[in-house]
Amino acid sequence: MTGDIRTPVTVVGLGSMGRALAGAFLAAGHPTTVWNRTPDKAAPLVAGGAVRAADPASAVAASPLVVTCLTTFGDTREALGPVSFDGRALVTLNSGIPADARMTAEWAAGRGAQFLAGAVKNVPSAVGARDTLLYYAGDKAVFDEHETTLKVLGGDTVHLGGEPDLAALYEMAVGGTLLPALAGFFQGAAAVQSRGLEASTLVRFTVKWFEMINSILPVFADEIDRGDYTEAASSVNLFHEMAADDDAFGAETGVETSWRGPLNDLVQRAVEAGHGDHSISALVEVLRKPAA
Amino acid sequence: MTGDIRTPVTVVGLGSMGRALAGAFLAAGHPTTVWNRTPDKAAPLVAGGAVRAADPASAVAASPLVVTCLTTFGDTREALGPVSFDGRALVTLNSGIPADARMTAEWAAGRGAQFLAGAVKNVPSAVGARDTLLYYAGDKAVFDEHETTLKVLGGDTVHLGGEPDLAALYEMAVGGTLLPALAGFFQGAAAVQSRGLEASTLVRFTVKWFEMINSILPVFADEIDRGDYTEAASSVNLFHEMAADDDAFGAETGVETSWRGPLNDLVQRAVEAGHGDHSISALVEVLRKPAA
Ligand SMILES: NC(=O)c1ccc[n+]([C@@H]2O[C@H](COP(=O)([O-])OP(=O)(O)OC[C@H]3O[C@@H](n4cnc5c(N)ncnc54)[C@H](OP(=O)(O)O)[C@@H]3O)[C@@H](O)[C@H]2O)c1
Ligand SMILES: NC(=O)c1ccc[n+]([C@@H]2O[C@H](COP(=O)([O-])OP(=O)(O)OC[C@H]3O[C@@H](n4cnc5c(N)ncnc54)[C@H](OP(=O)(O)O)[C@@H]3O)[C@@H](O)[C@H]2O)c1
Repeated sequence: MTGDIRTPVTVVGLGSMGRALAGAFLAAGHPTTVWNRTPDKAAPLVAGGAVRAADPASAVAASPLVVTCLTTFGDTREALGPVSFDGRALVTLNSGIPADARMTAEWAAGRGAQFLAGAVKNVPSAVGARDTLLYYAGDKAVFDEHETTLKVLGGDTVHLGGEPDLAALYEMAVGGTLLPALAGFFQGAAAVQSRGLEASTLVRFTVKWFEMINSILPVFADEIDRGDYTEAASSVNLFHEMAADDDAFGAETGVETSWRGPLNDLVQRAVEAGHGDHSISALVEVLRKPAA
Repeated sequence: MTGDIRTPVTVVGLGSMGRALAGAFLAAGHPTTVWNRTPDKAAPLVAGGAVRAADPASAVAASPLVVTCLTTFGDTREALGPVSFDGRALVTLNSGIPADARMTAEWAAGRGAQFLAGAVKNVPSAVGARDTLLYYAGDKAVFDEHETTLKVLGGDTVHLGGEPDLAALYEMAVGGTLLPALAGFFQGAAAVQSRGLEASTLVRFTVKWFEMINSILPVFADEIDRGDYTEAASSVNLFHEMAADDDAFGAETGVETSWRGPLNDLVQRAVEAGHGDHSISALVEVLRKPAA
């Protein structure tokens, strides 16, 4: 292979995210082989120059680097079950729990694959952008060998460490804010709509609000790492006070707020544990389960 | 009054936020009168040039513009109960529900005050910055007259409309993301700590994650305004799939995830209502209470 030829890549799993991954490799000039259980989804990629493999085994055989993006680790093991990797690199990019990443690492070793488990921390339309974050964990040699190719998927590409479950750990630790934050936004959207106002009028304010939250995260993280919650810019008591308004707001706007009940219970438990005057970051203490 | 002399301002309520407000007025050269139920809290401001009023009535009498920052609207009405405003402007900057803002507007009219109910969409340390957002609702003439003075508190100063409860509506509609988003972050912090990693290692990734969320909010808002959820970049089914991992992740990391149960129930209800393949923004449909 001359220096000019891009590493051939195989993408298995052509859902919303997999199609974006394969599209980025194609756009960057990598010979790209694709396979999907439902073959139709490959059509636009094939039209764009990708090679459609007949089955998972020939998809894997086609490239030294195999990227999968199926729904779960279990789906990945199932789809590639009978395939042998013969030392090729397997990089998974699905969501899942750390335990399942570890199990898949063992399975991959058994199938002769060098293994990285990664995560795309963005939406499909952001794949390929300079600022898009993907992180990987597992075999550092594989990462080093394919780093340039992996950066095609997003310029902010990070290796978290050799333990193959670290990307899953961070994926879930970071991603755990998504549904709660969105539910808060959708609740607000329903509330302004109940007054005949457009949900779009909320966006500019909510964007600024998340920027504000971003600006205080380093402070909260530092409080948590030091275990010292006494310098409270926003106290547990303040959140306790606000909790009382949730149901009245929901009643007034006709919006369901009962999903916030257990959140307010966490705040209540923090007050009872003596954290009332402490920073709201003290919630981390009530979120930790007592050791069995 | 010559053009050079800044409008005298009174600040009532010197908690974390009230002290920041009074400090910003002082720093901008406004003659500043302060009152707080617990008088000690005025001391640093008095040392900085503020005048301490003996009681709420003399605090109000001292300035054409009175800004309050007590815990609730009820506290505000209670503290200023017997005071007459004689046409002065009263601007509240506490949190609260729209119904309570409307009640306070009526109360203010009865006490001879021109009234604005506003909200500070940031932390005390951001008060006075060029980018800090505050919004106001109510008497537009009062806003126009005092806009320059109010901008001392934050350069991004907006009048939302004449109805006096609009700032409370947006305050709650926007602010409803805060506790859920933070709980997600604290859960993640506890999870990485369970592996001996610092919470601070999460910050860079979470900041980027909220930036990603910000980038997709306009799309979700548009889907909600059009009531069309069929172009799903992130589907309800995808969240449904992820929900199954919550408890296993909690068990593995020793972190409480049960507060997410009702969120996952909303997703489940959206699936049952036929939104499985639709955008996650379809959650807004299950958050709306059926009309009584
Ligand atoms: N979309 C996003 O915004 C986003 C963002 C970050 C991470 N992710 C993660 O990326 C992964 C894929 O997400 P997606 O949005 O692309 O999902 P999707 O559109 O639902 O696609 C799922 C893909 O997995 C395949 N699949 C599932 N089970 C299979 C099995 N047992 N055997 C063979 N193929 C199977 C599907 O094949 P068929 O076409 O035959 O059904 C399809 O190609 C998920 O883990 C998700 O959490 C997604
Ligand atoms: N801190 C923030 O990050 C933040 C951000 C945005 C909005 N806000 C909103 O700003 C408002 C004030 O918050 P804060 O953080 O300044 O709270 P805080 O530090 O707890 O201060 C509360 C203030 O209200 C006074 N007060 C309460 N009840 C009273 C009563 N019945 N009579 C007289 N005074 C009374 C307190 O007086 P004493 O000193 O005598 O107790 C104190 O001055 C709240 O609505 C909050 O939601 C705060």
